[in-house]
Amino acid sequence: MTRQNDVSDTWHQLKTHAERMSRTENHLSHLIQQGNRLVDFSVNGGGMMYDFSRQRIDRDVMQSLYELARGKNIRQRFVDMVEGKTVNKTENRAALHTAARDFSDREINVNGVHVKPEIGRVRDEMKAFSEKVQAGEICGTTGKRFEHVVVIGIGGSYLGTEFVAKALEGLADRKISLHFLSNVDIDCFGSITEKIDPETTLWVVISKSYTTTETMANARQAERFILRHNLDTRDHIVTVTSKGSPGDDPENPALAAFHMFDFIGGRFSVTSAVGGVPLSLYLGYDRFERFLKGAEEMDEHAMSASPEKNAPLIAAMLSIWNNNFLGYEANAIIPYSSPLSKLPAHIQQLYMESNGKGVTQAGQTVEEKTGMIIFGEPGTNAQHSFFQLAHQGRPFPIDFIGVIKPHYDMNTQKSKGVTNHQELWSNLIAQPQALATGKSDSKNPAGNFPGNRPSSTILIKELSPENIGRLLAFYEAKTVFEAFIWEINPFDQFGVELGKVMASEVRSAIAKKNEDPGYNFEGVGSIEKRYLEILSNGDFSGI
Amino acid sequence: MTRQNDVSDTWHQLKTHAERMSRTENHLSHLIQQGNRLVDFSVNGGGMMYDFSRQRIDRDVMQSLYELARGKNIRQRFVDMVEGKTVNKTENRAALHTAARDFSDREINVNGVHVKPEIGRVRDEMKAFSEKVQAGEICGTTGKRFEHVVVIGIGGSYLGTEFVAKALEGLADRKISLHFLSNVDIDCFGSITEKIDPETTLWVVISKSYTTTETMANARQAERFILRHNLDTRDHIVTVTSKGSPGDDPENPALAAFHMFDFIGGRFSVTSAVGGVPLSLYLGYDRFERFLKGAEEMDEHAMSASPEKNAPLIAAMLSIWNNNFLGYEANAIIPYSSPLSKLPAHIQQLYMESNGKGVTQAGQTVEEKTGMIIFGEPGTNAQHSFFQLAHQGRPFPIDFIGVIKPHYDMNTQKSKGVTNHQELWSNLIAQPQALATGKSDSKNPAGNFPGNRPSSTILIKELSPENIGRLLAFYEAKTVFEAFIWEINPFDQFGVELGKVMASEVRSAIAKKNEDPGYNFEGVGSIEKRYLEILSNGDFSGI
Repeated sequence: MTRQNDVSDTWHQLKTHAERMSRTENHLSHLIQQGNRLVDFSVNGGGMMYDFSRQRIDRDVMQSLYELARGKNIRQRFVDMVEGKTVNKTENRAALHTAARDFSDREINVNGVHVKPEIGRVRDEMKAFSEKVQAGEICGTTGKRFEHVVVIGIGGSYLGTEFVAKALEGLADRKISLHFLSNVDIDCFGSITEKIDPETTLWVVISKSYTTTETMANARQAERFILRHNLDTRDHIVTVTSKGSPGDDPENPALAAFHMFDFIGGRFSVTSAVGGVPLSLYLGYDRFERFLKGAEEMDEHAMSASPEKNAPLIAAMLSIWNNNFLGYEANAIIPYSSPLSKLPAHIQQLYMESNGKGVTQAGQTVEEKTGMIIFGEPGTNAQHSFFQLAHQGRPFPIDFIGVIKPHYDMNTQKSKGVTNHQELWSNLIAQPQALATGKSDSKNPAGNFPGNRPSSTILIKELSPENIGRLLAFYEAKTVFEAFIWEINPFDQFGVELGKVMASEVRSAIAKKNEDPGYNFEGVGSIEKRYLEILSNGDFSGI
Repeated sequence: MTRQNDVSDTWHQLKTHAERMSRTENHLSHLIQQGNRLVDFSVNGGGMMYDFSRQRIDRDVMQSLYELARGKNIRQRFVDMVEGKTVNKTENRAALHTAARDFSDREINVNGVHVKPEIGRVRDEMKAFSEKVQAGEICGTTGKRFEHVVVIGIGGSYLGTEFVAKALEGLADRKISLHFLSNVDIDCFGSITEKIDPETTLWVVISKSYTTTETMANARQAERFILRHNLDTRDHIVTVTSKGSPGDDPENPALAAFHMFDFIGGRFSVTSAVGGVPLSLYLGYDRFERFLKGAEEMDEHAMSASPEKNAPLIAAMLSIWNNNFLGYEANAIIPYSSPLSKLPAHIQQLYMESNGKGVTQAGQTVEEKTGMIIFGEPGTNAQHSFFQLAHQGRPFPIDFIGVIKPHYDMNTQKSKGVTNHQELWSNLIAQPQALATGKSDSKNPAGNFPGNRPSSTILIKELSPENIGRLLAFYEAKTVFEAFIWEINPFDQFGVELGKVMASEVRSAIAKKNEDPGYNFEGVGSIEKRYLEILSNGDFSGI
């Protein structure tokens, strides 16, 4: 009770701070001149540097944010999560993505079972399997080595893997190409089959329940494709699925099944077999394990560092500040590193699906706005795309991400006296500063920059598996810390259910029409009916 | 004067409508039941269907929006633009992207010169050049046919081309692969050079001024790469640039130069040589011209259809409605067609760079919020990514896009009684309806859907060049119509200048350090200096 009062006091205090920070004297152009701004407002933690010197904050704001974090006990909740407590209350489950990379001697019991040995066993299976495939000991039906891996999976079953694969593409030995078949759109399947050779293709079907509509439809297409080329599905398909699911059935004609666990949700599953199987095949198991160890380091940092030194916790509190107190609606993620180009799409899912919630775990409507909209493209590309709006239109906070050493560092040809990488960094350094300071131009109103636009900058040293693991775990921890502040459940996703139910009604009508061409969509709502007619007739004329 | 008063009356009226539409009885679940909702609130125009039945509007709202459009004279302004008037006032230029696809006998004079013959001449050059390359009459230094085209260009010099190339990938004959080198990041260059063969690669350098920093840095890398492989840059580089720019210099060692014009801005330039050269090489010139003809059809529709029947005009007015009256901050574009996966990124640039403005053409601060944030991913992927937030978190309007016939329509394998394409459409049909209606669940608060979330649905018949042209021109027209309402200039981009100036200061410091290792960044601001040290030392420890 006292605790709850403390929290609402702190919340009120932050509202007052927000008014204060909106005054002219607290414009970012002034704030960044004060004291040793960068030293005061940046931390090194979990193997990365997190600079929040260009957020619209001062010591008092941060003090209140740390108080709020303490009042809401979010670090303890994070530890509870890591230790296997039932933090996913609406689904009555633990949320143990951190266990997938926990190499410590911490025991984690779920319903009386120590889960880590089981997780380790799956890792051993992935290691053995990927090494055999890479050595050519496991081949396709015709004895040829696998050269293509097609991941069939949607949402959390592929976005994280795609991010990591692209980030570490430079380390792949290129003997195996990786493709992602996510969308049920037949044009995805059609386009991929033009790029692969059936005899050298291994399909990895990923679905926890092995009932995901899109994934099953694509798996059916793949099976038919394999058979049409006179190959055996038992040689060309592996599954990543729950123990005992239809994809884990010994009768199911697959080469191998790797288990996933109900305590690791899709969007948090990159470090489980979901990412592990494709990434081990593409990069080698050792690199996958190095990636896990980077993630583990960030998890330990998130658990153990005090709020004042805790990078993902600070990032979470600043997100709450920008959202609930300063009123921003969206947050951009701009990696100044093209290999990180798929990070924004992964975090878009991770964050918006986790924190796009309307009720608390206790079932009460959340009074404050929850998760923001996340979007982004790599810099400098984004500068030539939507930064006009970032500088002179409606403002939104930005996470800038920099990599100190590029992968292809041998190309040192200079232009305007600098290498390409130095040019990239000139922009990475200039943009947060330009957004913060602005510039007034009394002669040309179109040349007026209001400034005061907040950003953070994250640095990693190079595109190593460890650093990609750290970056991933940083955003995972930030996401759940924010959820703990709002007391929402970041692990469920009931919001996708209504669309599924309604799609299934439409599907039934189409299936019925497929069976009975005389059926005219009786009983279907009028707007939907018109669309069904358009699809049937192949034309929208006469509407 | 009377006109201006009319407009502010209409604006006030719309504010009143917005209050009215927020009442419970005007929840979308009720609105869509009224009358013949789809017939009343959809149009066929310019070759596409535009359904706005699930926007939060009624006849009275639309009436006021049409009045506002008439009061602001936006259709006449569009015609002025098409006819070559100086609509880009801050830069004292015409804005004539529509002239690039104007096959009518309309004369367009800019500064006394009829511009269409010149545009036609460039088209003829592209046709001749692309046909010779495809026939193997123009080859690389070693006499081999070109198999790779690398486009070097950033922002408007590639995003639109990438969208169109991906959308029509199924029509490409695959003898030429297309790559995009946009980012100055050396990891982009490094990664592309691993995928191409120097002897069979043609580089297309695109920059209006031929001074764009990123593009020039990448062109320098390409030149060095060509020379290192003992090839001649005159055989392997073509430019798309302004007449008389450094890239059009006869001394400049390039195979050919295709002209672009100062009256076509980057983000509007897909139908000029910017898109024309790569797309003709990739798809064949005839398909490029069909694409232009689709765009022309939509331009004619935008110019001639009355507001009540004008698809891009209605879309613009609804965007204003959602933004300025209902208060939404972002708009998602969700194509239910994977080949359209690059549309959101292109429109993100087109719209946010055009309409992310703070001042009117007359130099006055715009009182209303201007351009929204645009983001998006293909459906159903997006459903498994951020639709949780769309259904239960903060609401945002959505453009759903459907394609009646897929490209790969031979794969008719069924799952759950429907083909993949039918499954895709089940979702395309269900999602707008689910977002509009919502569903209450008194037992499980997490299963409560507020509904009342607005969307439009756009349909095209198939992925033909004409339809992709229509879709492009639809969004271009929508973008400028909105700008005309706010009286901002959608054709300039002064908002990117400050960052460029500040990046150039940082670049100078790095260049100085490259020359003089004893230079310690004296005179550079303290935060920037620390980043420069980190880049030099390769480490952020000790901060």
